Amino acid sequence: MASSVQARQAQSSLSGFPEWLPAGRIVEQSFLDALRATFELHGFSSIETRAVEPLSELARKGETSKEVYLLNRLQADPDGPEEADPAKRLGLHFDLTVPFARYVLDNAGALTFPFKRYQIQKVWRGERPQDGRFREFIQADIDIVGDGALPLHNDVEVPLIMHEALAALPIPPVTIHVSNRKVAQGFYQSIGVGDDELIEVLRIVDKLDKIGRDAVAAELTEAVGLSADQAERALDLATITGTSPRAIDAAVRTALGEAVPSETLLEGLAELASLLDAANLRRPGAIIADLKIARGLDYYTGTVYESFMAGHEDLGSVCSGGRYDSLASNGKRTFPGVGISIGVSRLLARVIGAGLIEVTRAVPTAVLVAVTDEAHRADSDAVADRLRQRGIPADAAPNAAKFGKQIRFADKRGIPFVWFPGAPGEGDSVKDIRTGDQVPADAATWQCPEDDLAPRLVARGGQA
Amino acid sequence: MASSVQARQAQSSLSGFPEWLPAGRIVEQSFLDALRATFELHGFSSIETRAVEPLSELARKGETSKEVYLLNRLQADPDGPEEADPAKRLGLHFDLTVPFARYVLDNAGALTFPFKRYQIQKVWRGERPQDGRFREFIQADIDIVGDGALPLHNDVEVPLIMHEALAALPIPPVTIHVSNRKVAQGFYQSIGVGDDELIEVLRIVDKLDKIGRDAVAAELTEAVGLSADQAERALDLATITGTSPRAIDAAVRTALGEAVPSETLLEGLAELASLLDAANLRRPGAIIADLKIARGLDYYTGTVYESFMAGHEDLGSVCSGGRYDSLASNGKRTFPGVGISIGVSRLLARVIGAGLIEVTRAVPTAVLVAVTDEAHRADSDAVADRLRQRGIPADAAPNAAKFGKQIRFADKRGIPFVWFPGAPGEGDSVKDIRTGDQVPADAATWQCPEDDLAPRLVARGGQA
Repeated sequence: MASSVQARQAQSSLSGFPEWLPAGRIVEQSFLDALRATFELHGFSSIETRAVEPLSELARKGETSKEVYLLNRLQADPDGPEEADPAKRLGLHFDLTVPFARYVLDNAGALTFPFKRYQIQKVWRGERPQDGRFREFIQADIDIVGDGALPLHNDVEVPLIMHEALAALPIPPVTIHVSNRKVAQGFYQSIGVGDDELIEVLRIVDKLDKIGRDAVAAELTEAVGLSADQAERALDLATITGTSPRAIDAAVRTALGEAVPSETLLEGLAELASLLDAANLRRPGAIIADLKIARGLDYYTGTVYESFMAGHEDLGSVCSGGRYDSLASNGKRTFPGVGISIGVSRLLARVIGAGLIEVTRAVPTAVLVAVTDEAHRADSDAVADRLRQRGIPADAAPNAAKFGKQIRFADKRGIPFVWFPGAPGEGDSVKDIRTGDQVPADAATWQCPEDDLAPRLVARGGQA
Repeated sequence: MASSVQARQAQSSLSGFPEWLPAGRIVEQSFLDALRATFELHGFSSIETRAVEPLSELARKGETSKEVYLLNRLQADPDGPEEADPAKRLGLHFDLTVPFARYVLDNAGALTFPFKRYQIQKVWRGERPQDGRFREFIQADIDIVGDGALPLHNDVEVPLIMHEALAALPIPPVTIHVSNRKVAQGFYQSIGVGDDELIEVLRIVDKLDKIGRDAVAAELTEAVGLSADQAERALDLATITGTSPRAIDAAVRTALGEAVPSETLLEGLAELASLLDAANLRRPGAIIADLKIARGLDYYTGTVYESFMAGHEDLGSVCSGGRYDSLASNGKRTFPGVGISIGVSRLLARVIGAGLIEVTRAVPTAVLVAVTDEAHRADSDAVADRLRQRGIPADAAPNAAKFGKQIRFADKRGIPFVWFPGAPGEGDSVKDIRTGDQVPADAATWQCPEDDLAPRLVARGGQA
C-alpha cells in the first residue's frame, strides 16, 4: 500500500493561475499554517487588505503598473464615479506592500506603533498569458512599521523571523543574504561615481554571476563611462561576502584602495555590522552579508535582503525585502518600515514539482467507519460522531458496499483506519489497513496514534 | 485595565470592501479556524480555486452575471486571445459553486468520488458602489459531489456539519430550515398549478412574511391567475413548519384538500422525512422543515436550506444551499452535488457590529520582555527566543524606555505579562499587569496560563 500521496497541481485551463489537487493543497495549507505560527510567536498581527486599490495607488511604483489587472463592472454605469475618473478605477493589487502602506495611512489613528503585521494573501499580475509566469499567487509578508522613527534593531528581527519560519518547513535550507543601500551608494561616492549613475551601475554589476567579471567590467567602462580602475573596484566590492563584520569592513577598505570612505559608506558599514553581530549571536548561519545584491536598491533606503535555497539557486531569491525610510507618509507623519516577503506559490511549485514533498494522505479523514447496510447507517454515523467529538477526523463510508470495497475506498485516499461497528451484542473493532492488524475498539476510548490524526508532510530526497 | 479589546472595522476609502483592524481580524481568523476544524473533522478536503473564470463560465447562471467584475490587463495586447474573444475574457468569481463545478470537470480523472470539499475564499460582486452592499466578501462552502449518483443521506450530512460548525462559534444559535423542491413542485402540480407558473408563484409566496397573507393571496389570483382556492392551499402549504415527518405529512395532506398527491410530491415528502428522521436523531433542534422556503427552488432540484440566527432574523439567511442533480456535467458524465454556503463576512459584520464579540487582546503576544537599556537588548532577545521555543508568543520591547512606559506599551495592546530580565547575578521576574503580581521566573520553565497563550474571543450580551 502507498505510504504517501504525491502532491500535484490540478488541471487548469488558464495558464498562470495555478490550482492544487487536494494533496497539494494540504502541502500549501501546512506551509501557510507554519508561517503563521512563527509570525504569531514573534508577536506579529495578521491583517488582510481588500484585493483592489484605486489605480492612483497602484501606479505609484511606476514601472510595475504595467502588470496591473483593472476591473470593470460588467453592467457599469458610464457616469459612475469609478468610470468617469481614471484615477478612481480599481485594479487588483500586485503586491502586499502598496496596500499595507495605504492601510497604515487609513488607520494611523487606530493602530499602535511600532506596528508588526503579517499578511498572507493572493496577488495578481497581468502578465502576458504566453509568458508562463504566475498571474495569481500567494505572498506572505512581514513588516514592522514605526511612527516617525524605527530603530535599527528591527532590521535584524525581520530576516531572523523569516529564516526561522522557513527553517520550520520541510525544504532545503535557505540563507538570507543582506546588503545595505548606504554601503553601495557610499562606496561609489567614495570612488567618484555619482549618484546619477548608481542605479545603472548596480544593474550592470547585478549581471556578474551571469556574464562574468570581464564582461561586466567592459560594460561599466563602455556604457556608463567608469574608468578601468573604478570598474575594478566596483567588482571587488561585489565579490565581498561573509558573516564577520570585521572581515567585511577590511575587505571594503581594501576595495576602496586609496579612496577615502564617505560618511554614507561608514554609516552603511556600521548598520551592516550591527545587523551581522545580532544575527551571528541569535541564529548563526542564517544571514550572510553579500555586497553584490543590487536588486531593490533603487527603492529601499538601507538594509536589503535576498534569499537562496540550497541546491535551488537557479530559482532566484525566494524571499526579498528591505528598509524604507518612508513606507508611507501623509505629509504630516512619516512611517518608516522594514519588511520581507516570500513568494509562497513559486516556492511551493518548485519543492512540489521537484518531488521534495509528499503527504501521508490526501484527505483529513483518519478513520473510515464501515457501513454494514443502509438500514444501519445510523450506527456508523454514531461511531463517527463519537470519534469526532474526541477530535478524531472520521467519516462514514459513502455506501454499504462489501467490506473489501469499503477498505479499498479508504486505501485509495490513504485513510489509515477502517472501523467496523459490531453486530448487536458484539463490540466494535478497528483495522489499521497499512498493517492489517484488527483489534477490538470502543469509539469512546480508542486512541488514534498522534501521527495519524492529520495528514503529514513527508520530505523526499535527502535534503528536505 | 481593559479586560478585552473591541473588534472594529478598519477605515476604508472604498465602500463595499470591508477591512478589519487587528482585533477584528483575530475574530475573523478565529471563525475561519473553527469552520475549517469542523469541516476537516468530517473528512472534507480543502481546495482553493483561482479567483478568475472565463466570462463564458460565469455567465452560465444568467442573471447573476450582471454583478461580475471583468478584468483588463492595463497593458493588454488588443489582439491577445482574451481580448479578441469576449467569451475568453476573465472575470472575478462571484460565488464558489461555479468555480467548484469547473474544478470538478477539469480534474474528474484525478479526484475520487464522492468528493467532499470545503472552500473558504473571497468572492467579488460588481454591485453599484452606492448600494452599500459588500463587493468583496468571504464565503465558506461545503459540498459533496458524486460521480453519476449521490445517495440521499448526503442531504442531511451537509446541514448537520454546517450546524455543528456554527454552534462552535460564539454567536446566537442558528437553526437550519429545510424544504424540498419536489414538495413544492409536486404540491402545485397536485392542485393544478402548472410548472410554468411555479417560479412566479414561489416568488410571490416568498413575500408572505413581508406583506401578509391577504396581499399574497390577492397577488396570486390577480398576477398569476390562480383560483381563490388554489391561493388558499398555496398559503396553507407555506405555513407548514416542524420537525416531525408525520406531522408535516399530515399537514401537507390537509392543505391538499381533495387533491390527489402527485408522484413528485410523494417523492419530495419521503426525502424530507428521511432527512428529518436522521437530523432528529443526530442533532435534535438543528434542523426544522419550513415549506415556505422558495429561494433557490429555480435552480436546486431537491433539498434546499436556509438558516436563521436567533434574534437576527432580519439579517436573512446566514447560510443557504441545496441539491443539484447536475452540479457539473461534461456530456458524458454527470456529477450531482449537495452543498451549503455561509456568507462569513456578512455574519462577522453583524455579530461584531452588534457588539456581541470582543477579544482578550489585539496582538498575538503573551509576554513583552522589557529592555533595560539598548546595550542589553540581546539579553531580552534571548529571553524572548527561549519563550518562543516553548510555544509562548513573546516580543522584546521596541525601545529601552522607562519600565513604566514599557508596561503601558503592553497594557495598550492587552499583552498580559511583562518580563524583566534580572541584573547580572540576579534572576528574572514576570509581572501579570492585570493583577500587578510579580514573581521570580525562568524563561526555560515558566508556565504561561493556557488561557493567556493566544487572544481569545469574549462573547458579550447574554446569548453569545
